[in-house]
Amino acid sequence: METKVQYLGYTTSALGSDSFTAINPYDGQAIDGFFVDATSEEINQAVDLAEKAVKICRKTANESRAAFLEAIASEIEGLGDDLINTGILETALPQARLQGERGRTCGQLRFFASIVKEGSWVDARIDTAIPDRAPIPKPDIRQMSISLGPVAVFGASNFPLALSVAGGDTASALAAGCPVIFKAHPAHPNTSDLVARAIIKAAQKTGMADGVFSMVHGRANRVGEELVRNSAVKAVGFTGSFRGGKALFDLANQREEPIPVYAEMGSTNPVFILPGALKDAQGLATGMAGSISLGVGQFCTNPGLLFIPKNEDGKAFINAITESVTTGEGGTMLTPGIKVAYDNSKASLEEQSGVKSLAKSKKPASTAGVEAQVYQVTASEFSNNPILAKEVFGPSSVIVNYNDKEDILTIARNLKGHLTATVHGTHEDLKDYSELFDILENKVGRILINGLPTGVEVCHSMVHGGPFPVTTASQTTSVGGNAIKRFVRPVSYQNFPADLLPDQLKDGNPLKIMRLIDGELTRG
Amino acid sequence: METKVQYLGYTTSALGSDSFTAINPYDGQAIDGFFVDATSEEINQAVDLAEKAVKICRKTANESRAAFLEAIASEIEGLGDDLINTGILETALPQARLQGERGRTCGQLRFFASIVKEGSWVDARIDTAIPDRAPIPKPDIRQMSISLGPVAVFGASNFPLALSVAGGDTASALAAGCPVIFKAHPAHPNTSDLVARAIIKAAQKTGMADGVFSMVHGRANRVGEELVRNSAVKAVGFTGSFRGGKALFDLANQREEPIPVYAEMGSTNPVFILPGALKDAQGLATGMAGSISLGVGQFCTNPGLLFIPKNEDGKAFINAITESVTTGEGGTMLTPGIKVAYDNSKASLEEQSGVKSLAKSKKPASTAGVEAQVYQVTASEFSNNPILAKEVFGPSSVIVNYNDKEDILTIARNLKGHLTATVHGTHEDLKDYSELFDILENKVGRILINGLPTGVEVCHSMVHGGPFPVTTASQTTSVGGNAIKRFVRPVSYQNFPADLLPDQLKDGNPLKIMRLIDGELTRG
Repeated sequence: METKVQYLGYTTSALGSDSFTAINPYDGQAIDGFFVDATSEEINQAVDLAEKAVKICRKTANESRAAFLEAIASEIEGLGDDLINTGILETALPQARLQGERGRTCGQLRFFASIVKEGSWVDARIDTAIPDRAPIPKPDIRQMSISLGPVAVFGASNFPLALSVAGGDTASALAAGCPVIFKAHPAHPNTSDLVARAIIKAAQKTGMADGVFSMVHGRANRVGEELVRNSAVKAVGFTGSFRGGKALFDLANQREEPIPVYAEMGSTNPVFILPGALKDAQGLATGMAGSISLGVGQFCTNPGLLFIPKNEDGKAFINAITESVTTGEGGTMLTPGIKVAYDNSKASLEEQSGVKSLAKSKKPASTAGVEAQVYQVTASEFSNNPILAKEVFGPSSVIVNYNDKEDILTIARNLKGHLTATVHGTHEDLKDYSELFDILENKVGRILINGLPTGVEVCHSMVHGGPFPVTTASQTTSVGGNAIKRFVRPVSYQNFPADLLPDQLKDGNPLKIMRLIDGELTRG
Repeated sequence: METKVQYLGYTTSALGSDSFTAINPYDGQAIDGFFVDATSEEINQAVDLAEKAVKICRKTANESRAAFLEAIASEIEGLGDDLINTGILETALPQARLQGERGRTCGQLRFFASIVKEGSWVDARIDTAIPDRAPIPKPDIRQMSISLGPVAVFGASNFPLALSVAGGDTASALAAGCPVIFKAHPAHPNTSDLVARAIIKAAQKTGMADGVFSMVHGRANRVGEELVRNSAVKAVGFTGSFRGGKALFDLANQREEPIPVYAEMGSTNPVFILPGALKDAQGLATGMAGSISLGVGQFCTNPGLLFIPKNEDGKAFINAITESVTTGEGGTMLTPGIKVAYDNSKASLEEQSGVKSLAKSKKPASTAGVEAQVYQVTASEFSNNPILAKEVFGPSSVIVNYNDKEDILTIARNLKGHLTATVHGTHEDLKDYSELFDILENKVGRILINGLPTGVEVCHSMVHGGPFPVTTASQTTSVGGNAIKRFVRPVSYQNFPADLLPDQLKDGNPLKIMRLIDGELTRG
């Protein structure tokens, strides 16, 4: 087997001895390619290079930084079928899904390139001097956001491209002018290796500083922990489990200098089906069953809780979703470990009082093969047992039967933080339940009406985040234009001569960005 | 003595038994007015009222919310000399200073009112639907920032108006639509009581919800700790000591649901005097001596470290500042406790190897009276002893003699986070030392050229913050327009019918705010 390397800026290294391979989720066999956990020296070297690169990255012209992001997209596309086939082998995700995910990944890189080129995201502000103001003169003060410094990013298993090496966290951190040290997810190291090489190539082709990007491997927690503890690292991006994200958050807060951890840690994504929405119970059930089993239920926005009225229409919906799930095929999960976790979560759910299994799909014979499954409980059982609201990572969902509006509002008030909440209903329903929206605003990052929570649009308005415990930073989003703001902080420049000011703050606005000048937003 | 009360929304209460009074810093005597630490019941009642008010505060029209802030300013002005005289009695700050601070406080409230009225601060974003996009339709997604919920604010001792009851944290939190529960500083409870009553009056006059503002007293840490631990509190604003701020930060992170703590914890505010700046050593020394002793050195931006070239010009500066300080009068600090802390900090400084006292002012005979004092150390002594860089809260400063540019850059690289860094020099100097600015950007929230760090302008471009340990949230500012952003989070609304959207996100832009529509900033 070939031994793969850590990418420490533009050099490669493989000093460690703790080795691992990826595992094929279909047959449980080792996949070719030998990886070693990064040593402490390698981790420090990557961070040192990143720290040295900060000044250059911060000052890189918008056009060049955008060209780098665009070059990453082109290099990833240049990997062709090799990338897709490697991804299939390591994750069991189907070809069309990985092709779509590659499209989203490259689209996301180009999206951030366009934001960088436009340039207004730095929130430039100028307050002009009033030297003769009484009782004291008003100084010239200007402000803009600058990059935080080296960022450690942890890849997620469930999106091996869009939330991994060149995924949203990396793209937004690089766009902000931060060097990135990426901790590869051990479930898809070969896929990660291909993408890391594409990034390194793009960085070299576009003349970026050595250290703008590094990637280290590690199956042991030590690797990630050492990264987060390194005093030169100034922020952390993470997508994964609550346990993993919260551990990094706690670690980062225990540092001598605490740093922000942007951890997106999964969600049960409640769906409220209001009475009038069940006119087409069949169509809605088919759509929902598809959303539950999409990507073998391994989406952060997978609908894990469905609130259905306890009436004849509700019964029709339940019959239809039961039919739809039962005739489904199930799927192969990302790793054998995730399959075991799914089985255990379901088993623990089944132990709870009042939980009834409604429907179970077929199950592939593969090592990580699982069935989709739908459960049912009453509103009072649900309200009395917080375990029923916990995320089961995989193609499973709990249907909760509610009696009336008061049930719905009580349930909503008791929700913890989630990525999304979805409400289905006629316009009449929505107005009738308008109080529900007031409650949901406090609980989630995104509220959808008459849609499916899966499918996260990469656009300026997307919030992929929400109140704890779904993230450790409810004031941010990990997908969409605002994700860039996680990696910057504002600095004021008082009484600076023109030639020492950044271009964004110069008189005459050479970059033609939108700025707040004496309280007026203007490109002048 | 009259017993004063807690303000729990629109009701008053005084259930507790642990009582205290303010102490006159001139004579150490108790000041009339008997205060009691808030009980747990009182704290919970204030937070419950705030939680109930969240929905109403969030939906209050911009005009009404602005009217509330403006009414607070008018009510404070309406307190007239009573407020100023009470402030003098409790803080020993001179009349002109408190009058100026009242002006800043009311100006700040009106500044946030203007931001609220203009309305664009919510960062409204709209991505319009493309129903026929292939392979999947693009949904309509809109985003804006909404208030976090109840905010606990802790008053600072050193600005009894501008950083206290109706100070920057309160003003920006109310502007953001958050109810505030204020923990009064026990050093100026009578001043706090007057301002709290002004806020309550303004809230009632402008029809705000009961619970939009509460104020509790407490000398025991328990009061603040219970506030921060209360699960309905969603953010904390604090200005004060490192020990106090860091303790609240840790407490907030240990909650089941961690919440952001915006703690501004003091700073030494290094001043770099480059060789060419000493052409007018006398003028610069007089200005700097004034800045050191301004407000008896009790400013967050007090210049506690002066880096001076080791040459004849440097000697002239040192002679001039020595002269200026020696002939000064000293002053009376805010409290006897702060005077003791100042004396202890100086004593600990004087114990350090190589620390030489250069100049000491006279000292008033008052209980909390202190002298201004300036010390001197060499660059190498400074570099080898981190204790010398610690803040001494009061009118003291350490002069560090440097030999050359390398000394300056090394010192700058080793700095921890500060609120400000100031550089004095000719244009030639500034260009010659341009690397210094690259370093300082990583160390402080505001860089000033040829100015004095004291005097924080309340404007859109102000950053009053900086990297840890000066704050627990380097990505924010506690003064200036952006302070409002600390108290909000973004929410996405997907596929909402027009009548369920907030006004900020409606087609037709009824509020005429700047919005990002399909990537274009526009008021259209």
